Amino acid sequence: MTAAAQPAWPALIENPAAPGRAIVVCEHASNAFAAAFGTLGLTAAQQHTHIAWDPGALGLARALALALEAPLVTAPLSRLIYDCNRPPDAVGAMAARSEVHEIPGNRALSATDRLLRVNAVYRPFHDALRGLILHRLTNGPAPVLITVHSVTPVYHGKPRGVEFGIIHDADPALALALMQAAQMLPLVTRLNEPYSAADDVTHTLRLQATPYGLANVMLELRNDLIATPAAERAMAAHLAPVLHRAMDAVISHPSRQQKTG
Amino acid sequence: MTAAAQPAWPALIENPAAPGRAIVVCEHASNAFAAAFGTLGLTAAQQHTHIAWDPGALGLARALALALEAPLVTAPLSRLIYDCNRPPDAVGAMAARSEVHEIPGNRALSATDRLLRVNAVYRPFHDALRGLILHRLTNGPAPVLITVHSVTPVYHGKPRGVEFGIIHDADPALALALMQAAQMLPLVTRLNEPYSAADDVTHTLRLQATPYGLANVMLELRNDLIATPAAERAMAAHLAPVLHRAMDAVISHPSRQQKTG
Repeated sequence: MTAAAQPAWPALIENPAAPGRAIVVCEHASNAFAAAFGTLGLTAAQQHTHIAWDPGALGLARALALALEAPLVTAPLSRLIYDCNRPPDAVGAMAARSEVHEIPGNRALSATDRLLRVNAVYRPFHDALRGLILHRLTNGPAPVLITVHSVTPVYHGKPRGVEFGIIHDADPALALALMQAAQMLPLVTRLNEPYSAADDVTHTLRLQATPYGLANVMLELRNDLIATPAAERAMAAHLAPVLHRAMDAVISHPSRQQKTG
Repeated sequence: MTAAAQPAWPALIENPAAPGRAIVVCEHASNAFAAAFGTLGLTAAQQHTHIAWDPGALGLARALALALEAPLVTAPLSRLIYDCNRPPDAVGAMAARSEVHEIPGNRALSATDRLLRVNAVYRPFHDALRGLILHRLTNGPAPVLITVHSVTPVYHGKPRGVEFGIIHDADPALALALMQAAQMLPLVTRLNEPYSAADDVTHTLRLQATPYGLANVMLELRNDLIATPAAERAMAAHLAPVLHRAMDAVISHPSRQQKTG
């Protein structure tokens, strides 16, 4: 039931003591395939497509974290081994098919295989992020959670018009403030597009932010706009002041009740 | 940031492999004060009142778990050391005052003291419960989370009329089904009394059930009705069939979407 004696790939945390209010998270940062799981029968080309990771998201998240003086929490392995933005019972947690691609190595996972990946990848990722959040929450202002993703410009053959998607879960406050602040950006910006919480793409927000009442938002950038390191940095330079403004608009620290009877 | 080198009091788990659909949780099961934290300046009498634990809740929870063939997850230490049903930034997590009692040992906790208790009590408790939930969720039907509490019959000098409180958080389905099924009980039963989610008393439900879409409910029994082992067992015999009926009414396993782009 525990991961004690198993291999584990915890989240990578950069600048854990950074002083900014935000914590930046990138669940789909990596297209690495650890030897323990192999490459799932994928070609080298497939391992570099958006099914394996969110291209550009790591570079953008890192530049954003730097600009916001925020810790950065990233998953070390491909989402196809385990997608840390999905609960264990989601079809997409260990997807057997992604867009038009079959994932042979995920086709016939046994109960043991699945549990091993949950314990080796999903739990250590979220435990590390949770440790950072609890550390902040215990002795300081509540952090703000920002998850950074990218989407493919063409999905199932259809071009996507949205360039910047701002997605919320149960608490829309930060997303709405960000929509307002983003009006100044030269980007086609949409609320809850191309995905929304109804598509169950907001697991990290649900798991880590909502239970603690943290302001939170998920960002989706079209990956053709962050296709080079220079483009990633330029996008971060666009987004950071807008995120600062939105955070300033919503940050509050509601006092909690006490029940003792 | 981790609890690795520190003492830790993980949740106690009884019958982890029990075959029933429910997981029964009792956060306020114990009035034990570990030597590492002392007795917080409380008298022996205070250590036995409802401020230190929920009298009767453990016996009731254990009898219910047996009847439901469910695992039982309980906190090993007094809620006054750390209340596992509260997030770290809640006033009541390490309460300096509870009802009419001062808690001297919680009056001047340093940042280090607070973080030590979070890492020693709160995190291990919820990690153990989470491990059980994820194990179930990875390879079987989603479990149902039932937390068991008791309330004092007199609070701040005022008698309480409610005998059985059924409390829900974001998802009211199981609580409403239970209200329906509880009509057969010889108990004064109320929805969201004497506390509700608005009082921030549903942290375990928010943290462990809602992010995974688990049906969940919090039960509050007036502790004068479960004041002896025989009374605890009798109450469990009343509640178990009602809980069975309510669970049967709401259990479903919604299929989740898959987002890959």
